[in-house]
Amino acid sequence: MAARSLDALIVTALPNVLYLTNFTGSAAIVVVTADRVCFLTDFRYLTALEGSRGTPRECPGLDVVEVAGSYDRSLADLVTTLTPGRAGRVGFEAADLTVARHAWLTETLAGQGSQAGLVATEGIVESLRIRKDAYEIATLREAARRLSGVAQRVLAEVRPGVSETEFAFTVDTRIHEAGFSRTAFDTIVAGGPNSALPHARPGERILSEGDLVVLDFGGVYRSYCVDLTRTVSLGPASPRTREVYEAVRRAHAQAIAAVAPGRSRFDIDAAARQSLTESGLGEAFGHGTGHGLGIEVHENPRVAQRRPDVDPQNDAVTSGMVFTIEPGAYLAGWGGVRIEDDVLVTDDGVDVLTDVTTDLIEIRWT
Amino acid sequence: MAARSLDALIVTALPNVLYLTNFTGSAAIVVVTADRVCFLTDFRYLTALEGSRGTPRECPGLDVVEVAGSYDRSLADLVTTLTPGRAGRVGFEAADLTVARHAWLTETLAGQGSQAGLVATEGIVESLRIRKDAYEIATLREAARRLSGVAQRVLAEVRPGVSETEFAFTVDTRIHEAGFSRTAFDTIVAGGPNSALPHARPGERILSEGDLVVLDFGGVYRSYCVDLTRTVSLGPASPRTREVYEAVRRAHAQAIAAVAPGRSRFDIDAAARQSLTESGLGEAFGHGTGHGLGIEVHENPRVAQRRPDVDPQNDAVTSGMVFTIEPGAYLAGWGGVRIEDDVLVTDDGVDVLTDVTTDLIEIRWT
Repeated sequence: MAARSLDALIVTALPNVLYLTNFTGSAAIVVVTADRVCFLTDFRYLTALEGSRGTPRECPGLDVVEVAGSYDRSLADLVTTLTPGRAGRVGFEAADLTVARHAWLTETLAGQGSQAGLVATEGIVESLRIRKDAYEIATLREAARRLSGVAQRVLAEVRPGVSETEFAFTVDTRIHEAGFSRTAFDTIVAGGPNSALPHARPGERILSEGDLVVLDFGGVYRSYCVDLTRTVSLGPASPRTREVYEAVRRAHAQAIAAVAPGRSRFDIDAAARQSLTESGLGEAFGHGTGHGLGIEVHENPRVAQRRPDVDPQNDAVTSGMVFTIEPGAYLAGWGGVRIEDDVLVTDDGVDVLTDVTTDLIEIRWT
Repeated sequence: MAARSLDALIVTALPNVLYLTNFTGSAAIVVVTADRVCFLTDFRYLTALEGSRGTPRECPGLDVVEVAGSYDRSLADLVTTLTPGRAGRVGFEAADLTVARHAWLTETLAGQGSQAGLVATEGIVESLRIRKDAYEIATLREAARRLSGVAQRVLAEVRPGVSETEFAFTVDTRIHEAGFSRTAFDTIVAGGPNSALPHARPGERILSEGDLVVLDFGGVYRSYCVDLTRTVSLGPASPRTREVYEAVRRAHAQAIAAVAPGRSRFDIDAAARQSLTESGLGEAFGHGTGHGLGIEVHENPRVAQRRPDVDPQNDAVTSGMVFTIEPGAYLAGWGGVRIEDDVLVTDDGVDVLTDVTTDLIEIRWT
């Protein structure tokens, strides 16, 4: 904030609000100044906030402002009092605030005589979130351990004869039983030709002998997200299945081997992509290699191909970053394979937080 | 669009994209012109889109544009080709587009020589969504019928001795079994003092004899959301519990009785609020009376107190609107009661879509 000469920063993105204050509800705004953290919320959450007093979840030193009517009305009133009678610079999160809210705030501040100027900022809180501290790493490590346990169970349970939807519910049940507060996204169970769709929704298709089945699921543990994918063969794998699987597995290993502090996130993506290209599957890999994990299931860093039009030069990963490595190969009409683990960049390399075999599993049943 | 002299409208809000095209994925942009509906999506969804060809889910006549890199880059390129060499007026959704995306688009369009001017719009697609058509009403009616069945089951199953979290999972299981694709929001099971928190999260508290328990849950059925709340007493209700319960029940009935085409949504809220005030519980009702239901679980119309600073005068409800009626009373440290049903405004009054008794249920067990 000092580098940007800001008198205050309005934080409206809820993951950033949670990061700064531990607030896990659905409505709050934070305004940070040099010496205050103002916390705006409404009656629904005030009692809950009281209840956190004296617990480890308490965020000390919050100046709580109760919102009686509209959040943005309370925000405008607060901003006016924070910079009385002078042309304060008040940052807002341009990647979260909508054009409509910005226009209303600008007009309202002017209407009530405030000289505060709204200044677009991007990524201030996110720049803190991208490197996890010891508490966050411990939480993500435990979450990954639990999710690996979920994977062991569901890999032992998947069978032909149930629908994708039914088996997705089994996965969700295991996630719940493992102590996650919720799934991190809608669980993917994609069998046979559906496995060629990277973002398939579970449907009524019955899992059948000979299917490749992509199982992609995640959980939220103490507000932190983890994410894991394995692809199994229901019954003996065909030579082509084995070939595609091993190609993805090599790409996955190459990408993990490329992770180290100081390496470019684009190079990590390139390691997976080049490996698949060498296997003749470069065209079959249409998404990025990975995404950051934390309070959001998709956050920075993005491990993807460089886009010259939008990506900055500063692309090195550093210790404390946690992200997925999830190359895949998708052949329309035939099927697909994806293998995903969660990794932590350490001071001298990489630590794979999830722990599930990447061997091709051929499910057998009687 | 004609009334606003727009050559094109950029639709970025995903519920609006779904409404216009049936697309249920997580990434797409629609650009509507007088004679085209351009649909931008990436490789992950193209195969799924192909799969909808010839099914009832197909949206005919889409001009599909594959997004290879960034969505906004593809959008800028498309907008430039749509209004070549002239100063076209291109609307965008100001309540969805962020300040950062707007700034990038403006700069990029100018940079590539487009004379298109971006025009802030609000609520164009939402103004269509607020009144449900026959298909949507049939879907919401069936969803409400199924959710009522879920309520019957969970009201028969709730018992002392399980934690809020455990019972919330039971509710989620029943929602799944009833054919919903997912819960519409995180299920609320709030017992004893927690029932005084309108947005309580289920916790480790064990439901206990004498508790009031608020059960608030919803499901998404064929992309449409329904929502229902009942409050039960574990064991015989105290005189005070009965008194508060009956006050909320009267407010709930008064609000439903106030629903008719042409009535102000603020008057419907006032009916509930006045009833609770007459019972001495006006201060205990700190939220709005209801919210619209549809593709989103919270949409227009908002049945709440008028806020002179933001609310327009046009506040009449009309036939085809579907919303919740959910007054409550919350007494910190003691507990709370909320009763919620989903109603449809008909040509001559109101149709309550959910069907569960509002009698106070005193759970008995052996």
